[in-house]
Amino acid sequence: MGKALAEAALAAGHEVAIVSGPVEVAYPAGAEITPVVTTDEMLEASRRIFATCDGAICAAAPCDYRPEKIAVQKIAKTGEPLTLHLIETPDVCATLGLEKSPEQWLVGFALETEDQRFRALVKLERKHCDLMVLNGPQAMTSEDNAVEIMDRSGGIIASVSGDKGDVAREILRLVQERLIARSLRTPPSRQPPNT
Amino acid sequence: MGKALAEAALAAGHEVAIVSGPVEVAYPAGAEITPVVTTDEMLEASRRIFATCDGAICAAAPCDYRPEKIAVQKIAKTGEPLTLHLIETPDVCATLGLEKSPEQWLVGFALETEDQRFRALVKLERKHCDLMVLNGPQAMTSEDNAVEIMDRSGGIIASVSGDKGDVAREILRLVQERLIARSLRTPPSRQPPNT
Repeated sequence: MGKALAEAALAAGHEVAIVSGPVEVAYPAGAEITPVVTTDEMLEASRRIFATCDGAICAAAPCDYRPEKIAVQKIAKTGEPLTLHLIETPDVCATLGLEKSPEQWLVGFALETEDQRFRALVKLERKHCDLMVLNGPQAMTSEDNAVEIMDRSGGIIASVSGDKGDVAREILRLVQERLIARSLRTPPSRQPPNT
Repeated sequence: MGKALAEAALAAGHEVAIVSGPVEVAYPAGAEITPVVTTDEMLEASRRIFATCDGAICAAAPCDYRPEKIAVQKIAKTGEPLTLHLIETPDVCATLGLEKSPEQWLVGFALETEDQRFRALVKLERKHCDLMVLNGPQAMTSEDNAVEIMDRSGGIIASVSGDKGDVAREILRLVQERLIARSLRTPPSRQPPNT
């Protein structure tokens, strides 16, 4: 979905920066790609790059947890059960939401398997997103997706399904209509750079 | 590595059956592919298909452990650490080693990060393999591999590095020379089908 969004954003004339975990995805050549491995690295790169952007779409599904300890060598099987202790990773999208300026916009993705709209609304508010895209686990590794798009009121403003490219173009159209055109109507509080 | 071995075996004139977990690999069209998800499914398919084969190369890295319980729905973050209880999965290669007939041959792969030769020899004996291919974690998702090949005496009979296709062809050459040609010299106990 990240690749499809980057392609749609490039086609709409945006400059695109991608922060991506280690996935087997051929991102478009026109995007500036920052590869990361851990969620901590994704947070650091996303904060740094977001500071120079008009908005961000957080389509990644970063790891929610990481192992408390990481074995230096391969763990040999012993015949006994194994217990993994996991601790939460930082929330990349929520951190951008806390740090964003009033002129910046933020779109989050929520992947839920139950109580989808309620949980997505909680995430939208907690992460300070302007729009939240709701999808299910069937989106992963599929060419297609079926999403609902929620605005800050909690209302579903669009339902889109089909090829991920079509879904991405519709998300970009809504970003343009609801977030970019809106901010153009509202004069920014910053001074333009040439004055 | 499984794809390269299948291509090398087809090129050498073998019929090839692949039992594969859910990976993003384009296997050769000439092979009969049985897709599986869990290690239990891989064991079941491998036992069933191995019964009809002259030999097997166990190049897969099946999961060594599986969760004791599987959540039906996505686990929501709580802010607290999470503990995963894991139990061992069956050993596919060792099970084939126990069930193989004297005419069948079995090649295992050992991925080790320390004490590589010692641990590979332990695996070779425990899994009743005829040859063991030793490689390290750098083999994963790489186009290249660097392996040592160990026979039942524990001796290293070959060291091969380079493109996975080259490594696969050398493994197949050794299988032909050491395992297939050997069994042709030793008359099988089964009657040939045309008598």
